[in-house]
Amino acid sequence: MKNEHIPHLAITPGEPAGIGPDILLQLAQQAIPAHLVAFADPELLTQRAAQLGLSIQLHKAEHGKLHQPGHLDVIPIPLSQPVKCGVLNPANAGYVLKTLRQACQACIEKRFDALVTAPVHKGVINDAGIPFSGHTEFLAAQTGAKQVVMMLASSSLRVALVTTHLPLSQVSAAITPKRLETVIRTLHLDLQNKFGLKVPRISVCGLNPHAGEGGHLGQEEILTMIPTLNKLRAEGMHLIGPVSADTAFRAGSLSDVILTMYHDQGLPVLKQQAFGKAVNVTLGLPIIRTSVDHGTALELAGTGQASSESLFYAVQTALEMIQT
Amino acid sequence: MKNEHIPHLAITPGEPAGIGPDILLQLAQQAIPAHLVAFADPELLTQRAAQLGLSIQLHKAEHGKLHQPGHLDVIPIPLSQPVKCGVLNPANAGYVLKTLRQACQACIEKRFDALVTAPVHKGVINDAGIPFSGHTEFLAAQTGAKQVVMMLASSSLRVALVTTHLPLSQVSAAITPKRLETVIRTLHLDLQNKFGLKVPRISVCGLNPHAGEGGHLGQEEILTMIPTLNKLRAEGMHLIGPVSADTAFRAGSLSDVILTMYHDQGLPVLKQQAFGKAVNVTLGLPIIRTSVDHGTALELAGTGQASSESLFYAVQTALEMIQT
Repeated sequence: MKNEHIPHLAITPGEPAGIGPDILLQLAQQAIPAHLVAFADPELLTQRAAQLGLSIQLHKAEHGKLHQPGHLDVIPIPLSQPVKCGVLNPANAGYVLKTLRQACQACIEKRFDALVTAPVHKGVINDAGIPFSGHTEFLAAQTGAKQVVMMLASSSLRVALVTTHLPLSQVSAAITPKRLETVIRTLHLDLQNKFGLKVPRISVCGLNPHAGEGGHLGQEEILTMIPTLNKLRAEGMHLIGPVSADTAFRAGSLSDVILTMYHDQGLPVLKQQAFGKAVNVTLGLPIIRTSVDHGTALELAGTGQASSESLFYAVQTALEMIQT
Repeated sequence: MKNEHIPHLAITPGEPAGIGPDILLQLAQQAIPAHLVAFADPELLTQRAAQLGLSIQLHKAEHGKLHQPGHLDVIPIPLSQPVKCGVLNPANAGYVLKTLRQACQACIEKRFDALVTAPVHKGVINDAGIPFSGHTEFLAAQTGAKQVVMMLASSSLRVALVTTHLPLSQVSAAITPKRLETVIRTLHLDLQNKFGLKVPRISVCGLNPHAGEGGHLGQEEILTMIPTLNKLRAEGMHLIGPVSADTAFRAGSLSDVILTMYHDQGLPVLKQQAFGKAVNVTLGLPIIRTSVDHGTALELAGTGQASSESLFYAVQTALEMIQT
């Protein structure tokens, strides 16, 4: 199926009752310089397109040609039960994971160059009795990646996280020298290899307010962070900090990425600045994977009011990463 | 001294080696609809004005008239030692606190309507052997306020904090039902009385990522926050949340203020959006107090490159609060 001259993207529309199918169908109306293949139930896509008043012609994913607006290649995976927009159904949780597993495997086997994902709904997968804590962890397990790093990027800002979905009270203990070192190494390597930055400039936020203010507001910077940064600097890495998080983003243009220690230290800024216009990239995987920056927005499914801007940006970012 | 027809503002220029005197002198060049009185060493102001090439005529703070550009009323407080721009000197720490103490006392005695402060340098005050953790705590102690709340505001966003300068590992334990309730009551009351909002709409961020995601990412929302919010809602308060911090700021226009649980959950967004154009307001004091949103910027003192925009906004906000 693979044509070596054009990039091949595997796309999963995610939760079928959410806006994933909608934004994929909207995206398919546009000219994209790649071969796009949806891993999905074709019947779902046909029905949703009719609901949205969009014209779409589905094809078997065999020709491997450049995407044509109004067309879409599909690797068919059947739903367990019909979908009603906005209504979660645990019976289809297995379907969602199957689309993801097959698309990921196709990337591992290099039949595709990158995986682009629309949002899944963690709750309904858990309700189906399947332990699932997110795309990132699922893909890490399937690809055998040891340390993955979540990074969100807009056109003007990149934010990476050392810890992600962890209760705040557990964050301090989770920032170990080993974890910090591994995350920085992963970030550094992928910014070189997948983003073409020779010596990435990484701003590292302190864990504490004012980066601990010389130990007055916490000891983690002195005991854990500064020694780790110095060790990596000795290898030639360009690391700035630990910097105070409330000023780090102002100086954003001086660095290529801002590494925050936890979820709410970094993401509020990025999402306030660029919600719906950002991409979520998983670093540290043996495959290229990008994702939208938003959730399933169940209430918008089938209404035509969902924006495909973030999915478009996720595709664009995947293409840039492939070409680096 | 007080003329009842115009508002009287007490201004402290803060650390003498920093940009505080510079931005005060720049401000004094403008038309301000108030009587401005600096609590400072007149010699310092004269010297700094000469260094900046600004014309200034200082007066005793006796006439109580509307501010005239190029003039400034001063209540003289002598430095201990001469100041060199950018060079901290613990010998002048006592001077800094004296300006603050006198200006605060003048507001307590209602000889002034509001206190506006330029930045102090905590480190040099501590180096002088004086325990000092910030303007806010100092003013709370001097006025006998039990619970003060730090709020930063720009033209489009207000962010208040439940905890401020606390190591991250201590934040969870500090968010007690009592503290949360007292902070919300203080915020609610002052938004009514000093900002003229009849029923302030307060968005409350969860402590944990995704506001705990139904208990999967932490229990504090369920055990502490939701019961407290419900108790206060029963009294008629308009409280939204607990909301996920990474989406709270997008919906900022739907609320009058976003209450964050700790320093780096709220301030990075505000400072990224409006650094140098925001004001720091202390709520819960028996006096009106506003401040700049930045530090002493020692390297800019005497260069003419400091911006007085935040000080101007602090004065403007104080005037609006007086008139409410």
